[in-house]
Amino acid sequence: MINKLAITGGTHGNELTGVYLINKWKLQPELIKRSNFETLFLHTNEKSIQMCRRYVDHDLNRSFNTIDLSDDSLDRHEAKLAKDLNKLLGPKGSKNTNVDFIVDLHTTTANMGLSIVVSNDSKLTWKVIAYLCQQEPSLQVYRWQGDEEGAFVDSMAPHGFAIEVGSVPQGVLRADIFLQTEALVYHILDFFEKVNSDIMISLPSEIEIYDHQNLVDYPRNSDGDIIAMVHHDRQDKDYALIGSGSPLFLTLEGKTISYEGEPLHALFINEAAYYEKGFAMCLAKKKSIMITE
Amino acid sequence: MINKLAITGGTHGNELTGVYLINKWKLQPELIKRSNFETLFLHTNEKSIQMCRRYVDHDLNRSFNTIDLSDDSLDRHEAKLAKDLNKLLGPKGSKNTNVDFIVDLHTTTANMGLSIVVSNDSKLTWKVIAYLCQQEPSLQVYRWQGDEEGAFVDSMAPHGFAIEVGSVPQGVLRADIFLQTEALVYHILDFFEKVNSDIMISLPSEIEIYDHQNLVDYPRNSDGDIIAMVHHDRQDKDYALIGSGSPLFLTLEGKTISYEGEPLHALFINEAAYYEKGFAMCLAKKKSIMITE
Repeated sequence: MINKLAITGGTHGNELTGVYLINKWKLQPELIKRSNFETLFLHTNEKSIQMCRRYVDHDLNRSFNTIDLSDDSLDRHEAKLAKDLNKLLGPKGSKNTNVDFIVDLHTTTANMGLSIVVSNDSKLTWKVIAYLCQQEPSLQVYRWQGDEEGAFVDSMAPHGFAIEVGSVPQGVLRADIFLQTEALVYHILDFFEKVNSDIMISLPSEIEIYDHQNLVDYPRNSDGDIIAMVHHDRQDKDYALIGSGSPLFLTLEGKTISYEGEPLHALFINEAAYYEKGFAMCLAKKKSIMITE
Repeated sequence: MINKLAITGGTHGNELTGVYLINKWKLQPELIKRSNFETLFLHTNEKSIQMCRRYVDHDLNRSFNTIDLSDDSLDRHEAKLAKDLNKLLGPKGSKNTNVDFIVDLHTTTANMGLSIVVSNDSKLTWKVIAYLCQQEPSLQVYRWQGDEEGAFVDSMAPHGFAIEVGSVPQGVLRADIFLQTEALVYHILDFFEKVNSDIMISLPSEIEIYDHQNLVDYPRNSDGDIIAMVHHDRQDKDYALIGSGSPLFLTLEGKTISYEGEPLHALFINEAAYYEKGFAMCLAKKKSIMITE
C-alpha cells in the first residue's frame, strides 16, 4: 500500500525528457491521477533547467548522502536544493517520509535503450521492476552499487529508482524517447493502483539484471585530458558482453587498446556527463534476481 | 595556388571532434604537412573547450561580421577572441589575409552525416567541394545564405567552409565521426597539394547541393518555451524531402502538426544548439551547381 508517489524531472537540467514530461502533466494532470494514491510531479532543479546544464554548482543526483544533507556549511546551489527537496519528499531515512516512492527521470547519451538504475533493495521496489520487465520486454535493469551510500534523488524515499533512456544528446528532446519514458511511467502508476486495490498481480519469479562491478576510465595524459576514445567497435554496444582482447579504446594516434579481464557487460558507454566523473563505461555482471513476496 | 591553410577546431567547445583532431595533430604534425603549402591548426576557443560549452558569452561562429570586428566597445569573451583570430588568420576582407583557406571543424546532434556548410562563392572553394564529393560520395553540401553577411570563422579567409558531422551529442567524442572527419581533412590537403603542383584534377562539371531557403521554429508558448517536439517520423531524417501534410511536430499533448508548403528538404533537424537560436530545422532546395574553371 502506498499513499504518495513522486515523479521528478529536470534533476539534470539538460536531460529534457523529464523536464518536458513534467510540463506535459502540468497541462494534463489527469494523465497521472490514479484512484487510490496521490502522485506529485515536479522539476527538481529549475535553475539548471533554465541554464540547460546538468547542474549549477554540483551534481544534484549525487547530493543526497546523509552527511551532506546535515551539513549546513555547504553553500553550493544543489546542496541547498537537496535540503529543500528532502523536506518536501523525505526526510531520507525517516519512517514517515512524505512520499513512499520516487521515480526520477533521466536520459543518457549512451545507447542504453529503456533502462532502470536502481540502488534500493526494498521488496516493493523490486516488485515494481519485475512488473515493468513483464510489461516492457525491452527494459533493462542496472543495479548500481558503486557508492557506499546512495546519494541519488530517489534515495530520499524508502522505495524508488531512476529511469534512464538513451541515446539522446544533452539539450535535445526526442519524441520517441519521450513517448517510451511516458509509457513506462504509466505502467508504474497502474502497478500501484492494482497493488492498492489488492488486485492480484502475477509477477515473474525472477528477472535478469546487470549488477555493477567496476568503472573503466578513458586513458588520460598527465594533465588529465583524454588521449583515447571509446573504440568504434564498442560505441553504442551497451549491455553487450566484452571479453579479454575485445577492442575498448582507440588512441588519438590510432592504436587499439583492448580489454583485459573477466568477461563483463559494458554499460553507459561514452556518456557525456561521465567524462568529468572519470569513467568511459561501467562494467556489470548479468545475474538472475529472485522476486519475493 | 595557396600558401597557407588553417584548420580550426573547438570553435564550439563542446564539439569534441575538432578539439581532439587538433590534439592529435599536435602529437603527429607530420600527418597534415604537405610539400608545397603551410597548414596551421589551432583551437579557436580554448576557454569554451575548458568549460566544455558551446561558448562563454556569445557564439564565436557568429562573431565575425565586419561591424562587430571593428566595434571596440564589445566586451564579451568571443568578441575579443574574434578580433585576435582575425589578426592571426585574416584580416577579413583584406587582399592579403594571413591564410588563404579556412576549414572549421564542427559536429552536430542532428543526423547530418558527413556535411559541408558553405557560404563562400569563390571558385576555389567550390572546386575543393567538387573534389571532396568525388572522393567521399556520402558527403552532402549545404549552402547557407541565412544571413546578410557571413559571420562564421571561415569568413576571415577568402576561401573556406565548415565541416559538420553528426549525429553526435555535445560533449561526446565518437571514434567513427572522428575518423570520418579526419579522412575528409586529408582529402582537402591532398587537393591543394595537387593544385599547387599543377597536377591535373578531373572534377565533376556539376554537383548537387542543398540551398538554404528558410528556418522553422518549434511551436512555443507565450513564455518562449517549446510546447512541441520534432515528430518521431521526422527525427533523424536530415536531407529527406518533406511535402505538405508530412508530420513535423508532436505537441506535448500528443497532437501531430504537419508541414504546409512547397516540398523542401529538412536539415539540422533538432540540433541542440539551435533551440536557443529559435529553429527546429532548416529547409533547403536541392539544386545542381556548375563547377567552373
